[in-house]
Amino acid sequence: MEHTTEILRQLFVLLFAAKIGDEIFKRLGQPPIIGEILAGALVGPAVLGWYDVNSETTLFAEIGVVLLLFQVGVETRLHDLVKVGPSALAVGALGVALPFAGGFALAGLLGSPLVVAVFLAAALTATSVGITSGVLRDLGALGTQAGRVILGAAVIDDVLAMLILAFASGLAAGSASLDRIAVLVVVAVVFIGIVLIGGTRILARRRAILTDPRFAETPFLPGMIIMLGLAALASQIGLAAIIGAFLAGMVVGESSERHALEAEVAPVAAFFTPFFFGFIGAQVDLGGLADLGTLALVAGVTAVAVGTKFIGAFIGAIRLGTAEATLIGWGMVPRGEVGIVVAGLGLQIGAIEGQLYTVVVAMAILTTLIVPPFLPALVRRSGARGTLAGGVGPDVRTGDEED
Amino acid sequence: MEHTTEILRQLFVLLFAAKIGDEIFKRLGQPPIIGEILAGALVGPAVLGWYDVNSETTLFAEIGVVLLLFQVGVETRLHDLVKVGPSALAVGALGVALPFAGGFALAGLLGSPLVVAVFLAAALTATSVGITSGVLRDLGALGTQAGRVILGAAVIDDVLAMLILAFASGLAAGSASLDRIAVLVVVAVVFIGIVLIGGTRILARRRAILTDPRFAETPFLPGMIIMLGLAALASQIGLAAIIGAFLAGMVVGESSERHALEAEVAPVAAFFTPFFFGFIGAQVDLGGLADLGTLALVAGVTAVAVGTKFIGAFIGAIRLGTAEATLIGWGMVPRGEVGIVVAGLGLQIGAIEGQLYTVVVAMAILTTLIVPPFLPALVRRSGARGTLAGGVGPDVRTGDEED
Repeated sequence: MEHTTEILRQLFVLLFAAKIGDEIFKRLGQPPIIGEILAGALVGPAVLGWYDVNSETTLFAEIGVVLLLFQVGVETRLHDLVKVGPSALAVGALGVALPFAGGFALAGLLGSPLVVAVFLAAALTATSVGITSGVLRDLGALGTQAGRVILGAAVIDDVLAMLILAFASGLAAGSASLDRIAVLVVVAVVFIGIVLIGGTRILARRRAILTDPRFAETPFLPGMIIMLGLAALASQIGLAAIIGAFLAGMVVGESSERHALEAEVAPVAAFFTPFFFGFIGAQVDLGGLADLGTLALVAGVTAVAVGTKFIGAFIGAIRLGTAEATLIGWGMVPRGEVGIVVAGLGLQIGAIEGQLYTVVVAMAILTTLIVPPFLPALVRRSGARGTLAGGVGPDVRTGDEED
Repeated sequence: MEHTTEILRQLFVLLFAAKIGDEIFKRLGQPPIIGEILAGALVGPAVLGWYDVNSETTLFAEIGVVLLLFQVGVETRLHDLVKVGPSALAVGALGVALPFAGGFALAGLLGSPLVVAVFLAAALTATSVGITSGVLRDLGALGTQAGRVILGAAVIDDVLAMLILAFASGLAAGSASLDRIAVLVVVAVVFIGIVLIGGTRILARRRAILTDPRFAETPFLPGMIIMLGLAALASQIGLAAIIGAFLAGMVVGESSERHALEAEVAPVAAFFTPFFFGFIGAQVDLGGLADLGTLALVAGVTAVAVGTKFIGAFIGAIRLGTAEATLIGWGMVPRGEVGIVVAGLGLQIGAIEGQLYTVVVAMAILTTLIVPPFLPALVRRSGARGTLAGGVGPDVRTGDEED
């Protein structure tokens, strides 16, 4: 009883604090995820100490990020990866390649070992689909050409980042042997291929298969079972659990009752993800930012993160014109959760140290904070504002808020 | 990573097994909760050993039952406790008093200590709102007079059972000193009174208060925060966490956006409660039912449970006529989750032993299994079938299934 009481109290404190952080940041017009992370840092061991990092809170954080990536997967259509065409592909690929190269080169300059370099590079790659689409939604620019390219590119970007993460995890887990890495890459690619192609084929043939069981009025519970199963399986074969959850979401999202599924996944994810973001914050060593060397590193990493992502995405979108490419490049800059997930994973498995983790979290926060103030002008200049016509799918708009 | 993989695998196994059990029992026309419990017993330590009882799976089970009671609370209106009138009150009160007295007397005959007697008696009291309303829904008899009395009585019954549970918990936690028990009862009553009266007054004055924060488009996240907070607080002052969760649900259910809340709580509860029922099953010692003494005890406890509940409820409803009273009495017999919760709590805090726990679970399963086959004839005989007219509130019908 004592222990249960204590855990319930900690979960209450973290959820309450995260939602206060969310509220404050929403009112300031800033991304609420940042508020949740800072709230977690405040109530966590570094400051108030009302919340511990223990096996139960770690499980809640893990399930939180598994659900987040499952939700992103559900909202991601395989055919969108194909449909968005050359622009999104170029923006996504260059927007991953340049930050990865930049992060790797920076780590080389700092004399970091290979595994650290790969984790830093991986943490710089992924644009946050959640943050980008949230900002564009506020601007009413989701249905524009630039909005669609950014969404499509962010999806491609996420998948590439996950492949890089699989590579980085294998590198950290195994030895540096190229054979083993090659095997892991093959295993990862085969796993992803079988799940995606096999899963989507089964669902393409019988789109209502997930609601065949009588316990399943919607694909929700079958989806949760598949999510936990593929997360465990991915983790078992050396990938990150979140990769399995993302793939599960992509496959289950092919179901004929996707909207019922999304409506049911949303509250579960809304309940759980604050435990993840709060937990992320609780792991940040705020004191670690107090010395000049670390601050210089934050400045350097952030500059590389912003510069490489902007230039990569800009080049990828250049055929759409300078104004459009500038908007797209800038819109791709926010990192948010994926960078933090990668860095958190690196920290958890001992591949990177607390200082670099703190630096990456600071970078993710900074890249997310600097983007929104400039977007309205860029949207106006690209002439992209206005047309909110269909084509983005209702998933993107269901979260519309009153403000 | 190893540990996370293992926990994800166990959660997957339990959820998958529970839903297969659910499916089999639905197809057999039996209550799916029983299928989930038996599935948990199958994959648990007693049989296959694919699932452990450890701190993480215990937390998931605890959150599962907290969410279940929160959901029951949301679906329970304070004014329904008043509105259903004398019949429901008489059925509820007598339907608790007689089983309590019967359980207490039976324990006395067996020479059990006071705390065991109180826990056994408490475990016999509460009708399962979920199971009863599920069975009536299948019969299309929720909107009838008998249906409303059963629902109202089940609610009163639940509240009384919780007061008894608070008393039993205090008895087990503290000494047998009457002073301390009196203090606990006073603390419990004051806590419940302040939460219910204070909470509902605040919400009565400003029914939209829960959606004032910008992070709250619906009362869902504020509700989850209040649920965790009151569960932790109830646990802190010596009550069961589920009592806090139930009260939180009752209060939050007063919100003007109750239906949005219910729609969002439903998937979270649907995801979590199988971890609770499966966990319950995993704790049953099936081997323990193998000896004749235990089987005799199961028969005795079940006979007392069925007889006292039927007679108590029948007397309470007698003014409505014999046919109606027979239907109501029989409809109140299923125990299900609340009895198991009480017994599980008793086991957890060491108030009762594994044998008695197994006996109570067997009793809950048996009382739940014997009711459905006889209900259709009783409904026909009471002439209660038909009128599905309003008044039961949409919450009761949203779960309607296609079969």
